[in-house]
Amino acid sequence: MLNTDRYRVPSKAGSRFKLAIHDPDDHGKVTEERAVPRFARLIAEFEELQEKLYADHTRSLLVVFQAMDCGGKDSTIRHVLGPINPQGCTVTSFKAPTAEELDHDFLWRIHAHTPGKGMIAVFNRSHYEDVLIARVKNLVPKKVWKDRYNQINAFEALLHEQGTRVVKFYLHISKGYQKDRLLKRLEDPKKHWKFNPDDLAERKRWGQYQKAYEEALRRCSTEHAPWYVVPAEHRWFRNLLVAQVLVETLKDMNLHYPKATFNPRKIVVE
Amino acid sequence: MLNTDRYRVPSKAGSRFKLAIHDPDDHGKVTEERAVPRFARLIAEFEELQEKLYADHTRSLLVVFQAMDCGGKDSTIRHVLGPINPQGCTVTSFKAPTAEELDHDFLWRIHAHTPGKGMIAVFNRSHYEDVLIARVKNLVPKKVWKDRYNQINAFEALLHEQGTRVVKFYLHISKGYQKDRLLKRLEDPKKHWKFNPDDLAERKRWGQYQKAYEEALRRCSTEHAPWYVVPAEHRWFRNLLVAQVLVETLKDMNLHYPKATFNPRKIVVE
Repeated sequence: MLNTDRYRVPSKAGSRFKLAIHDPDDHGKVTEERAVPRFARLIAEFEELQEKLYADHTRSLLVVFQAMDCGGKDSTIRHVLGPINPQGCTVTSFKAPTAEELDHDFLWRIHAHTPGKGMIAVFNRSHYEDVLIARVKNLVPKKVWKDRYNQINAFEALLHEQGTRVVKFYLHISKGYQKDRLLKRLEDPKKHWKFNPDDLAERKRWGQYQKAYEEALRRCSTEHAPWYVVPAEHRWFRNLLVAQVLVETLKDMNLHYPKATFNPRKIVVE
Repeated sequence: MLNTDRYRVPSKAGSRFKLAIHDPDDHGKVTEERAVPRFARLIAEFEELQEKLYADHTRSLLVVFQAMDCGGKDSTIRHVLGPINPQGCTVTSFKAPTAEELDHDFLWRIHAHTPGKGMIAVFNRSHYEDVLIARVKNLVPKKVWKDRYNQINAFEALLHEQGTRVVKFYLHISKGYQKDRLLKRLEDPKKHWKFNPDDLAERKRWGQYQKAYEEALRRCSTEHAPWYVVPAEHRWFRNLLVAQVLVETLKDMNLHYPKATFNPRKIVVE
């Protein structure tokens, strides 16, 4: 098994945490050959734990994915969250906020999609965009985005205290890797719909985004809602690490099938 | 391939349609051995079609499941809708309406969960409960539920006209089969959470429910939103038939990957 702590951003890390020390090409000394059966076992375990979470119906799990374009959010969701029971899992992709959403505080639209009891909610992008793109592109004054780190921590603490585990994954790739992926998208007509020429403008701000990510991960990785830096240039390793963290998180919740509120022996089915 | 028309309730069927002529134990002369690889091929096709639906982003699919308790709604959703990309699929389980929902017309809460462009929405129970349990248990006056058949048809016509294909499955089981399943649930402590002693009261109204289903299927199977009666006592046959209908429906939508709105050759990735 991987030592997932290695990828976890320490709580209150401050300047001790540097994104640059994480290698996007890392694969934890695991080979793909060994990763494949291990991943299959983890998924089987994940499915069983999800059924328990659903049956238990007292707590829930929120999984956040953030990444630069081509980081593999969609693919991770498909491979790791795809196999579980779709009835117990919602996926929300947060796009640019609508006019109505902008008329509320930045957590308003997020709160609406947090998981109900027994459920797993997956966020493809999240409230973190409000300290990432909002910061890099000056969508709000500095004072506003600066306040958001504490607001996010308070919001995630509320979720945790009310029974929702929060786990956050930053899928880490290099600028060179992104280039390769973008070129591949351009070569394949089946993938043109995923390509948006405007994304190239974001790519030019790579350094600013890395800085914004670094601060978000530093300030918002907490005991109750940790951030993980997932080396994402090997898909099989990325999936393995995310699956293992999810399984460990659910195991730690100590889930059980609820006891019957009736006496099964006294039930007569006519 | 199965002849899925055999299981489709004809449009405007009137009294020609009888639920009783459908055998819940039917398996279309297919063996489980032959069904398994065929199902796997259908799922692969389904995944590809779903990606096209998602990429195309102009139309959507609504899949409704209704059944008596133990009919296998959860299991069908898990096996047939489970393998596809969770990001393109939402599952809504409609429970007894809340006080707020009861303050609105019966389609208000339903409308909120219909699929957005590119999406597949799955309903585990639906607006049909409002002509099933509402009728059998006299939750509303007869005049009210009688009006609902036309209201449902008008609502589904709106969805269809706006680009949403609607397909509805009634998972058909016998009263004897339900008994076997209920007894199995009682034997397995891991399944006690699925058992609700109140369901036995519904079981006593089996005949009334069959009559209510028959009328719903008769009156609301339309060209634009057909009902299928799925023999559901063989899980592998049930899954095969549902998967095939979904694949045929998506194929009929003539989906394509959208053409690029830019010239891929002119894009420079720096």
